[in-house]
This record gives sequence, structure tokens and C-alpha cells, in this order.
Amino acid sequence: MDLDARLPFLLRKRNIARIEGDRLLIGDRRRYPFKTSFVPCRNEDEVAQAIRMMVTQGGGPLQVALTTLRFTARRIHAGQLPMTADTFVKTTALLTHARPMNTTMARTIDSLLPRITAWFGTNTGETDLTAYVDALVDDAEAGFDLAYDRMSDTGAGCIADGEQILTTCFAEHSFILSLIKARDTGKRIAVVVPETRPYLQGSRLTAPSLQELGIPVELITDGMGAHLMADGSVSRYMTAADLVAMDGTVVNKTGTLSNAICARHYGLPYQVFALSPDPTKLSKDDIVIPQRDGEDVCRCLGQPTTSEGISGRYPAFDIIDASLVDVIITPKGLLAPGDVAARYGNRGRTGGVK
Amino acid sequence: MDLDARLPFLLRKRNIARIEGDRLLIGDRRRYPFKTSFVPCRNEDEVAQAIRMMVTQGGGPLQVALTTLRFTARRIHAGQLPMTADTFVKTTALLTHARPMNTTMARTIDSLLPRITAWFGTNTGETDLTAYVDALVDDAEAGFDLAYDRMSDTGAGCIADGEQILTTCFAEHSFILSLIKARDTGKRIAVVVPETRPYLQGSRLTAPSLQELGIPVELITDGMGAHLMADGSVSRYMTAADLVAMDGTVVNKTGTLSNAICARHYGLPYQVFALSPDPTKLSKDDIVIPQRDGEDVCRCLGQPTTSEGISGRYPAFDIIDASLVDVIITPKGLLAPGDVAARYGNRGRTGGVK
Repeated sequence: MDLDARLPFLLRKRNIARIEGDRLLIGDRRRYPFKTSFVPCRNEDEVAQAIRMMVTQGGGPLQVALTTLRFTARRIHAGQLPMTADTFVKTTALLTHARPMNTTMARTIDSLLPRITAWFGTNTGETDLTAYVDALVDDAEAGFDLAYDRMSDTGAGCIADGEQILTTCFAEHSFILSLIKARDTGKRIAVVVPETRPYLQGSRLTAPSLQELGIPVELITDGMGAHLMADGSVSRYMTAADLVAMDGTVVNKTGTLSNAICARHYGLPYQVFALSPDPTKLSKDDIVIPQRDGEDVCRCLGQPTTSEGISGRYPAFDIIDASLVDVIITPKGLLAPGDVAARYGNRGRTGGVK
Repeated sequence: MDLDARLPFLLRKRNIARIEGDRLLIGDRRRYPFKTSFVPCRNEDEVAQAIRMMVTQGGGPLQVALTTLRFTARRIHAGQLPMTADTFVKTTALLTHARPMNTTMARTIDSLLPRITAWFGTNTGETDLTAYVDALVDDAEAGFDLAYDRMSDTGAGCIADGEQILTTCFAEHSFILSLIKARDTGKRIAVVVPETRPYLQGSRLTAPSLQELGIPVELITDGMGAHLMADGSVSRYMTAADLVAMDGTVVNKTGTLSNAICARHYGLPYQVFALSPDPTKLSKDDIVIPQRDGEDVCRCLGQPTTSEGISGRYPAFDIIDASLVDVIITPKGLLAPGDVAARYGNRGRTGGVK
């Protein structure tokens, strides 16, 4: 299965992160589609800094983190870092702190860490560290690809012929693949994309990716979702999730809550793609929403939108109560929000994203 | 009562429209606050064109239309237009067709028209036409000032100490005066302003006006209203209305519906300022929402926000069902949506905005 070939430019692995020479390159989503560029990182600190600076977002940091494990192995091989388990402990810590809400990334590399550090106890000198780490990461990537494939089978199955789907931000692999599969099985679909201010991920990432795939797309502002629900232009609301807690609480980009409430008001389904519900977050009480720089709200593409001295507020994510979510699309299939704990709680947990 | 002196720059009459020499100047709200400029109009066609081009908006066209009646009288006096009643019929028709949703403007000048044309039947040569029209317009303006004053007394009374008020777009005189009066009676208030894409009236008009008045203001994007309701940062939602129908249906800038639904979801009051409910619109069935150029959604301050070839949709206004509105603040006081017809229907109509 070659998922990459089906995906738009932005979601292909090498365009999210790749190693070239002694640099790790991160696809810069901040100026896409106006500029296609990569941020070169010389070391793990620079990678963490790039993640903090929002060079990539959504599922991007996960792919960057996996690539960084390969990068650290190469840097050890090149003698730039000490050949100790501690080197990987440091890499992992740097990455997991770079984007606190991205617990899929954090949990994935945390779960790989003991398997990598085990190499130092047992295999030193016998097998090549780089080959060993590459095999582990290849395996993790294949696991995610399988998960995306399964989730998008489920997602595509939810979409009927003739639907107009509202989304928010850039819902990435599972959502985009669901649309591709729905379209490829002959369903006529169209997508309504809110621009997703202040960073414009809807305008800059989602809409161009759908355009690239030939899927009909229409851009709206972030306040127009309800209007299109009211006049019948939208039949379904689908988003990714930055985090799903065990009680079915969903965390996603600000703007999601408003549309979820309106979807419920108009009796439209709200469906969430969740690669990996987080067993360490039992409920919304365990979730702290980071505030981003309010100045971002006072600018658009670098240009001021208001008078100097006016302050903005930018809560990075919305917390969407489980009662507003119809169904969560996971690698384990469709789950009611109330069933997440039974399938993903620590009791039934089998590790990683499987 | 000198309302103008209390109002911010943008809402003072001479900054909305004024006659200077042989030009009618319209305050250009499209680039404010980055540029303070006026569009000079040589004739009534150019005034109508400026209104169509959104040089001014909200309550602006009403003030422009009143000033245009003075302007036409002066142009007749100067021999630039025929001294016939038909000249005013043409001016009125040009203005009323320039912004179909702005029925307060249309109804106001329509109601003045017979009183102006009466002059030609009875007073030709005896009294000065310009003085006659000025007196009529002075009277209409005083009526609106009185209405704003009453509505803002009511609005200020609704706001309690310590409130954080969410709004949408630029709610102008009644809302701004309500805030001023609430603040001046010692209430601590703050206002949360969504930027109101695509034209950014929130960022460019409302927030700078509140800053000018020294009223605490915080800017958010159009998708963040629900977030702030959920976390307790907003206690009340207040907007103007472009139109209120007899069944209490409210028409206002897109983005209003979404916040109204969310306010209801969180049990927060949604209150609408309505200068003049429209007795000719019985229900939402009588309302046709104009679509503006979808290209506007694909740009911000002139800069493209997405790839070329992607199309946007821009429904100019939301229709908010009466069931979502708590109370309508009118010159006749606080009305439940269901009571609008009894107070403003044709049966009880006394004309104009009284």
C-alpha cells in the first residue's frame, strides 16, 4: 500500500520531514501555498524550536519526531552525539515538550524510547544503531499508515453521495483519504473549508490540498458555518482531533466548538477522526489549553488588521464536550464518545496507536 | 443633546458624510484605521456607486442618504439639476437600490420624499428649497439622535457591572453609546470583538472605536466566540441588526447566527439593537440574502489568502430565527421578538423610526 502516492503534496512523508546530508528538513507550512520551502535543522534543539515555532502543525510534528529519531541515530553514528541511551532520552524529552497538546507525538516516541535504549544494553556494536532505529521507525510509520487506511475506509463509508462536508483547520491524512476514497467510489462530494484564522490553515493547507486532488472545495470565513448549515449547504461536519480524552472529550483547533454546537442545533452529524485517544487524559479536567500570542489575531499574513495597542486573545484549541460529538472514527472503527474508554483506556491498552 | 461629541470619530455625522463645496464627501470605512480618507462624490450617481462599493456600511448609508437630500437641493439651487419633484424621486430611487438590505435607509428617505415633493406643488419660489430640505433632514436626524439616546439608555441598563460583552461587526451608535453610558455610570465592562472577516469591521472599526473611547476591548477571530462563552469570558452577546422582521427574525452580518446559537447553548442572553423594525417584512420568507463576491473570502486586506483558482462563498448576512433572540432593543424600549409586530406592524405604524 503506497499511501504517499495518493496524498497531496503537503502530506507526503518526505514533504513533512526528511534527512538530507547533515540536516533534517521540515516542510514549512507557515507560508504554504505561497512559498514551498523547508526549514533545515542542524540538531535536535533546532527541530524542537521549529516545532515550537509552528513550522509544521497537526500531524506534522509526529512525522517530524519519527524522522528525528532516525536523525539522532545518524548523528551518533557520525560522532556528533555520544553513543549512549541518554542521547535518545534527551531527544525524546526535547520533542515531547515542544508541543504539549500533541500527545500522539509524545506518546509515540515515548513508547519507542525503551525499545531504542534497549539496544544500548544488548546490541552495542553487534547491529548497526541506525539500521536498528530505522527498522523501529519504519514499523511505527507502517502502523500509522495502516491506521490512516483503516480510518479512511470508515470515514469514506460515513459519507453518502451528494454530501457537502464542513471541516475546520487541516484534518490531514484520515480526513483527506476519506474524501479521496469516497470520491473514487463514485460519490459526488464537496467540501466547505473555513479559512481558520489566524494562521489560515483552511485557506492555505486544506483548500489547496483538495484543489490539488481535484475535490470540489469552497472557502468560507470562520463565522459562516452556521449560515451554510441553516440553508442546507452543509450535510456533515468532520474534523481531526488534537486530543481525545477517555470520556470522549475532543480537543481541536478553535472554531471547532462553535461549529459542533451549530451542527447539533441543526441536527447534522459531527464526526471526529482520532488516530490515538489518550488514555492518560480521563476527562476535560486533565486538559489545559495553551494560549498562543494574542498578537497573531491582530495580524493576517504579517499585515496588521487593527490599530496599534489593541490586544487579541488566541486560545489555541477548543474543548468539545462529548455530548456534542456523534461518533469518533478511530483505527478500531467507529466509536460512540462513551465507548472510548472501554476501547482505549489503560485496561484495554495494547500500546502505541494500534 | 450633543450626541456627536460623545461618539468616536467614525460615528460623528461629519465623518460619515458631509458637503464641502460642490462635493459630497463620504468617510471611507474600507481602509480605516490605516487610512482616514473621504470619497468625494460629484453627483447622486457617484453617491449610489460609493454605497454599492461599501465605502460606508451599517448605519453609514442612512446618514449618507440624508446628506444626499441636502446635496440634491443644493445642486438644484446651483442649476445643476432641474427644479422638479422628479429630481428628488430619482435621487431617492438611486439610493434605495444601492443597498437592498438597508431598509432603514430606504424607508427613511421614502418617507421624506412626499414631504419634499410637496414643496414643488405649493411653495415654488416662496421659501428656499435648500432651507426647506435642510429643515426636514435636521428633523429626521434629531429623530434618529433621540432614538439612539433612548436605545442606549435601555442598552446600558441591560449591562451589569463586571460584564464582558461579545459583539459582531460594527454595531454603531446604539451599542457604542450603551457601552459609554454603562461605563460612565461606573460599571466595569469589557468588550470582546470578533474580527469579522472578510472586511474586518470588528478589527478595523469596532475595536479602534472602543480603544478611542478608552473602553477595554479584546480582539478574537470569528470562530472563537463559543470558546469564550464556554470558559466564562463572555456574559452577554449584543449586536446591531441590518433588518428586523415583524416576526422577530433578525438579519445581521454573517457570523451572528453562529454566536447566537452558541449563546443559547450556554444560556447567555442575545440582545439586538433595532433602530427600525421593518413593517414590510413579515417573516424570513420576505428576506432575500444578497451574496457578495466570494473572492473577498480569498483575500485579506487585498492580499491573497489561498491558492489561485479556489473559490469562496460570501453570504453577506445571517438570518437569525426569533427563537434565538432574547430581546430586541428598540426606540420603543425592550421588546420580546414576538412583540415586534404589535409595536411596529403597519397597524400601529406611525411612520419613520418613531
